[in-house]
Amino acid sequence: MATKLSISAVNELDYRDFIHKFGSVVEMTSLCAAAVCAKRPFWSFDSFVAAMCQFIDDLPEDGRAGILRSHPDLADRLESLTPESQREQTQAGITALSMDEIKQLKHYNRLYNDKFGFPFVICARLNNKDAILGGIQTRLYNNGDQELKCGIEEVKKIMLLRMKDLVECEDSKL
Amino acid sequence: MATKLSISAVNELDYRDFIHKFGSVVEMTSLCAAAVCAKRPFWSFDSFVAAMCQFIDDLPEDGRAGILRSHPDLADRLESLTPESQREQTQAGITALSMDEIKQLKHYNRLYNDKFGFPFVICARLNNKDAILGGIQTRLYNNGDQELKCGIEEVKKIMLLRMKDLVECEDSKL
Repeated sequence: MATKLSISAVNELDYRDFIHKFGSVVEMTSLCAAAVCAKRPFWSFDSFVAAMCQFIDDLPEDGRAGILRSHPDLADRLESLTPESQREQTQAGITALSMDEIKQLKHYNRLYNDKFGFPFVICARLNNKDAILGGIQTRLYNNGDQELKCGIEEVKKIMLLRMKDLVECEDSKL
Repeated sequence: MATKLSISAVNELDYRDFIHKFGSVVEMTSLCAAAVCAKRPFWSFDSFVAAMCQFIDDLPEDGRAGILRSHPDLADRLESLTPESQREQTQAGITALSMDEIKQLKHYNRLYNDKFGFPFVICARLNNKDAILGGIQTRLYNNGDQELKCGIEEVKKIMLLRMKDLVECEDSKL
């Protein structure tokens, strides 16, 4: 893994380098980094994270749903994941699912997609495969508003961990 | 060029195919398509375009600036343009600039970037190289708010032409 940037190094990046560096912390949605880079200087890692979360929260509702729609399906799209996702999924043991578990996950994924119109998003690095298989079944009972909120909270958890991989964060309270 | 889709074919696309198909009509900002796909069915090409424009207008200001920041520099980035950009730039004769004109465009690009914090965006398919070189010099006199507005209008012109390449639009008034 590349050396982590200090927050002052983050503040000094050219905006293109900033977008390049942080464009994937929200999957397939580099607009978050492109928007937030003008909020610099950040005084800490946590204020950088807060600015990213704020941008997501300030998006119109269809923008937040668009972020979810931009995520790959956990099961169907294992082949086409970004390097970031792939590492995370492997850590959660997703690639080590049995044939039966894959079939199960695909089944619930389809139901979830049909109900909500976006894929099931969960922070795989914070959940093992049993928690993921349980989570999708539980969350299927939510309504669309609850699930949009729930999915976006997971997007933020994934984002936080990816940002911690990229930026020094010893003083973080997150 | 691939066959154009009818608006009813657009309405029937799976959301992933929709994002894949229209993710690049706003350069590097597939979130626009990802957000707007749930607004379907569209009754016409023009209402599809209107929904895309509405999403851009509803973004927080830093989101609109982020769209501009996601665009490649006209001069500096000729090498790394997306296929869509490359074709458009070639049509405007940008790649046929003389050494002196390239130097001039790079110079103004730098001034523009320094002043506004985002690159100069212009619809190359609607402007020849003299109009582009003239445009950047004139627009350098604008203030940040004017230029954000002006840049976004150009983004919409580029988007409209790209959408016309992808969707049947004989009945369009745009």
